[in-house]
Amino acid sequence: MTSKPIIRDVRKADFEQWQALWAGYNAFYKRTGPTAVSDEVTRTTWARFFDAYEPMHAMVAEHDGRLLGLVHYIYHRNTTMLGPACYLQDLFTAPDARGHGVGRALIEAVYDRAAAAGSPRVYWNTQENNDTARKLYDQVADLTDFLLYRKTI
Amino acid sequence: MTSKPIIRDVRKADFEQWQALWAGYNAFYKRTGPTAVSDEVTRTTWARFFDAYEPMHAMVAEHDGRLLGLVHYIYHRNTTMLGPACYLQDLFTAPDARGHGVGRALIEAVYDRAAAAGSPRVYWNTQENNDTARKLYDQVADLTDFLLYRKTI
Amino acid sequence: MTSKPIIRDVRKADFEQWQALWAGYNAFYKRTGPTAVSDEVTRTTWARFFDAYEPMHAMVAEHDGRLLGLVHYIYHRNTTMLGPACYLQDLFTAPDARGHGVGRALIEAVYDRAAAAGSPRVYWNTQENNDTARKLYDQVADLTDFLLYRKTI
Amino acid sequence: MTSKPIIRDVRKADFEQWQALWAGYNAFYKRTGPTAVSDEVTRTTWARFFDAYEPMHAMVAEHDGRLLGLVHYIYHRNTTMLGPACYLQDLFTAPDARGHGVGRALIEAVYDRAAAAGSPRVYWNTQENNDTARKLYDQVADLTDFLLYRKTI
Repeated sequence: MTSKPIIRDVRKADFEQWQALWAGYNAFYKRTGPTAVSDEVTRTTWARFFDAYEPMHAMVAEHDGRLLGLVHYIYHRNTTMLGPACYLQDLFTAPDARGHGVGRALIEAVYDRAAAAGSPRVYWNTQENNDTARKLYDQVADLTDFLLYRKTI
Repeated sequence: MTSKPIIRDVRKADFEQWQALWAGYNAFYKRTGPTAVSDEVTRTTWARFFDAYEPMHAMVAEHDGRLLGLVHYIYHRNTTMLGPACYLQDLFTAPDARGHGVGRALIEAVYDRAAAAGSPRVYWNTQENNDTARKLYDQVADLTDFLLYRKTI
Repeated sequence: MTSKPIIRDVRKADFEQWQALWAGYNAFYKRTGPTAVSDEVTRTTWARFFDAYEPMHAMVAEHDGRLLGLVHYIYHRNTTMLGPACYLQDLFTAPDARGHGVGRALIEAVYDRAAAAGSPRVYWNTQENNDTARKLYDQVADLTDFLLYRKTI
Repeated sequence: MTSKPIIRDVRKADFEQWQALWAGYNAFYKRTGPTAVSDEVTRTTWARFFDAYEPMHAMVAEHDGRLLGLVHYIYHRNTTMLGPACYLQDLFTAPDARGHGVGRALIEAVYDRAAAAGSPRVYWNTQENNDTARKLYDQVADLTDFLLYRKTI
């Protein structure tokens, strides 16, 4: 890339390119077969990005009309803060666009949004063995000693 | 205890007893001095439990009029599910009431609520070295291999 | 009716009976043809009643297993109150069950919920010429001198 | 005014000027004495404008650094729509700035926001005898035949 990608809110016209990135992201997490993200979930999540009542947002990295990456973030309440926490749930860069700072730019764009939005904390989860991603995360955020427990209802 | 505590929604009349448990919980996490939970946050969080617009809830374990434990949980959106995720943020049992299943009963009450509420997942974070709590958590939920990164804005 | 109907939260098993009442309600408002409430809206609204993240609720009046009426209410913010306003959006009694206090019982059940939920105000809109309904409303609430303006976007 | 005011989101630095407009607005509605909007409500409402979790927003009309008007709007669910309704709750123009299209510009800015936000309907209430305001409203929106009933809980 001879110039930097721009980071911007997702638009309805982005659907096809976003869906391809979203599929790549879900494939990385091996959400296939019975654990695949259904079309209904994808459509609902997409619609929620454009529903002003939902505190769920998406930004993309764009370069020459091509989407190189996505980030999804959600504001929610927290018992120890007045303002909302900002959960950066999903981050993905197209494989052939890696190594150019797209992921970092997307994370930093979320920081800017959270700051403007009165949210004192951005957080996310990543798998212990995700060495590539963690190299970046160790530079831009703090690793805690918290584990994640989960129960499917 | 010769009988089991009951698990119920918190009530406004519980404030003093709840506040003592909440203080004990925050002391456990060493939220003191500059990182203490302020009175304003405590009052706001308490008010949110009784504000039907806020998806933030609290239950307590009560035995003979005494509150033995608390649990706080919050529903929020998630990009991979139609229904909300249920974040069990805080769980605490009074030190002298431990070993009688209060924590487990509070967690299971959240499971029941989440099931009734169309929430397919309950989750929480706990510190790696919290061996006592983890003995219980390993019995009632699944440990994932996710780490938690955090950025203060 | 030899006994009074019970007022309770709607359940998933109520769908068919609820849908019939909902259709009757929408027919009353002449939402047909191009202004009909679509199946997608009906399904989404129904799902929202069971989504704990959505502050949208439904109760029904039941007698001997038959649903006689419905009420839908929504909590939302208001700039002049700390707690949420409660918008009683829809109220309907099956035509052959009218005159037995079903509508009044449904409204009063919403009052009870709002009181428990920290909501200081319940409100609704009704058409000026809806004399039958207004006879009841004039007994249980206060008519204001506010008109309703609306812009379709 | 030799140039048009700009319409923009409210900023924290606007507090004093906003508060003066808000006081003027509440005085118009005779919210004084026991029905006055308390300082706590004013502070909470102001904080909510800057809380990304709250679907409550404010814009102001600014000219040469002076705020001439305000508009507050809130997104909330509605049983007959997929996207949220947009409730334009408060609109006020400083008395000495009237007659220059400030109110209309604020309303139209809300329309733009609602359109971008996937909200198919903007609505508001106004008192029947508010002839001045209604002259404007009749030009930019549709008067319905709905009355407003209200119950203080």
